[in-house]
Amino acid sequence: MENMYLALVHHPIRNKRGDLVTTSVTNLDIHDIARSCRTFNIKNYFLVTPLKAQHDLVKRILGHWEEDAANAYNPDRQDALSIARLVNSVDEAIVKIEEAEGVKPLIAVTGANFESFTGRMNDLVSKMNVDKKPCLLLFGTGWGLHASILERADFSLDPIVGTSEDGYNHLSVRSAVAIYLDRFAEASRS
Amino acid sequence: MENMYLALVHHPIRNKRGDLVTTSVTNLDIHDIARSCRTFNIKNYFLVTPLKAQHDLVKRILGHWEEDAANAYNPDRQDALSIARLVNSVDEAIVKIEEAEGVKPLIAVTGANFESFTGRMNDLVSKMNVDKKPCLLLFGTGWGLHASILERADFSLDPIVGTSEDGYNHLSVRSAVAIYLDRFAEASRS
Repeated sequence: MENMYLALVHHPIRNKRGDLVTTSVTNLDIHDIARSCRTFNIKNYFLVTPLKAQHDLVKRILGHWEEDAANAYNPDRQDALSIARLVNSVDEAIVKIEEAEGVKPLIAVTGANFESFTGRMNDLVSKMNVDKKPCLLLFGTGWGLHASILERADFSLDPIVGTSEDGYNHLSVRSAVAIYLDRFAEASRS
Repeated sequence: MENMYLALVHHPIRNKRGDLVTTSVTNLDIHDIARSCRTFNIKNYFLVTPLKAQHDLVKRILGHWEEDAANAYNPDRQDALSIARLVNSVDEAIVKIEEAEGVKPLIAVTGANFESFTGRMNDLVSKMNVDKKPCLLLFGTGWGLHASILERADFSLDPIVGTSEDGYNHLSVRSAVAIYLDRFAEASRS
């Protein structure tokens, strides 16, 4: 079974004008993506932000997963958070994976506007098996991952292609994660 | 091209104990699912609730899509709402589709816990083409669509199967919609 890790990156990110920015963590991204990650056997879900004020917020949300009152009625949502990890940077996530796996992970990136890409999810899974390496799959927020992250990637995935007649193609990051992880499950089975 | 419609059903729904309930509309379901629907060429996205108090909320959200101040910075999110429609019941959605298409749609249902199902998305798309009919794809909230809706379906889709070692399989409805629509796009292309 392939060991896949996922990170939702809030820095370094591009804004609409292409500038380097740090985006805000949202409660919903934490919960929804954690549930997708748990369902599709992702080893850890890293929330990447260097902002200390955001760390307090994220820790409060993650800290509640064992004790929240909502837990009694809806334990599945809380349980999903058990695989979430808060880190300051993509590099810190890489270090944590290397500590757990004994080998550096492949870095795979996603983006809606890639003009070229390395391959599809089944190609990435093949590479993980050939290289005998885990993988860290990176998702951007805002207007996508900054170039300084993209240029460090070992593998860029094909963008999700919409089918609207006017070319509209603006999935939420939560939806994009769900689609890529479904494709990961499909590729892992075959 | 297959004419697919989608409805997010807030009534009739099952709660955890299997009782018939009406769930609340959430702002996020409106926005996220509208973006997925627009990206994957869904003709209309119906928000189904009989609650008048919820109608005011939904109308306020949908009414803003042309005028909201956020529109200037982020027009894509607002544009997606143009395909959303508020209805009191699944039957009202069916009537609206029949008015637009001149034929009653096939009713297809989704659910995480189906013990049996009619087929996969590519089978449904084949049926739409053979029958020369549009389709209304129903998604439940809460603990899923109530039996009174399920028993009226022409087609039930295979559940999304997770890959977690302990059987955890609790996607958000937003994530499930994204995955099924990606599969619909794939089936439409082939």
